[in-house]
Amino acid sequence: MRYCADCGAPVELRTPQDDHRERYVCTSCDTIHYQNPKIIVGAIPEWEDGRILLCLRAIEPRHGLWTLPAGFMENGETTAEGAARETLEEANARVAIHELFGLYNLPYINQVQMLFRATLLDLDFSPGVESLDVKLFKEEEIPWEQLAFRPVRYALESYFADRKAGEFKLHSGDLEPPVRKG
Amino acid sequence: MRYCADCGAPVELRTPQDDHRERYVCTSCDTIHYQNPKIIVGAIPEWEDGRILLCLRAIEPRHGLWTLPAGFMENGETTAEGAARETLEEANARVAIHELFGLYNLPYINQVQMLFRATLLDLDFSPGVESLDVKLFKEEEIPWEQLAFRPVRYALESYFADRKAGEFKLHSGDLEPPVRKG
Repeated sequence: MRYCADCGAPVELRTPQDDHRERYVCTSCDTIHYQNPKIIVGAIPEWEDGRILLCLRAIEPRHGLWTLPAGFMENGETTAEGAARETLEEANARVAIHELFGLYNLPYINQVQMLFRATLLDLDFSPGVESLDVKLFKEEEIPWEQLAFRPVRYALESYFADRKAGEFKLHSGDLEPPVRKG
Repeated sequence: MRYCADCGAPVELRTPQDDHRERYVCTSCDTIHYQNPKIIVGAIPEWEDGRILLCLRAIEPRHGLWTLPAGFMENGETTAEGAARETLEEANARVAIHELFGLYNLPYINQVQMLFRATLLDLDFSPGVESLDVKLFKEEEIPWEQLAFRPVRYALESYFADRKAGEFKLHSGDLEPPVRKG
């Protein structure tokens, strides 16, 4: 951020009165421009035979890897509405969203990811513009080595474990920056 | 938003290619300025005798009403770290944060509120700059008619009910805009 979104004047980084952190503050109109974490909402869509819907990513990051349908929550919607919208956009799939299942903090990229249990309502799905393919996977068919994001892996591992145990619980995790292989 | 935060040129509202919504897009550098919901994180701090810590608000909105310690989640922290930080800032109180207890959507103001169960670690608390008073309340002492926000009420109601039942569960709710009296 270099300019004030309200008046167009330059901003500077400084700590406002009664605040503990540096913020972008306008040098002309004094507006404080706060920056806060963003929410990723997504679904774990299960079909009636127990298979889970995954999407093959057509976009970066992680083009060509499998993921649960998920994306940035939008203004004006609830977390569950966002999870259903993302599933419709990425997989042209209709779901009933149930309770929050996975809550993952990624503080190094200022994200909170929220993945919800969901029931896939019909088999009339197909790839959205951000997907190359959309498929149902049995637990033993999950492409564990080709998953796009760690929260997807953690949520699926917890999901199958809870399903075997007969009770779904909320799972949380705080993620460190990934170690990049060289 | 009227000006591009990156280059200072005017922005216009339009729907970018492959998008479904109007966004603020820079008329000069084409940067898309997304706007997304913000997260409020807070704690339900319980002392060892079962009393709950509440703060009397010294600031608007709802000056002079009681609330759980809570506020905007900051970049670079986890949801639990944010809930602990807000408790320290508003009540000078140290807590151990436990699992997520209340998840409330307020889509009409683009907020998601997340309230966590917490253990108050000592009695050395005092009002922070945003609080007029900080006190411990037994269930029968809770000032139900002087609570600042509906999620605080809903979370406390669910908390006491779950505590009686002997099991804490995650509670969720989607709030409509409040009906203003008068």
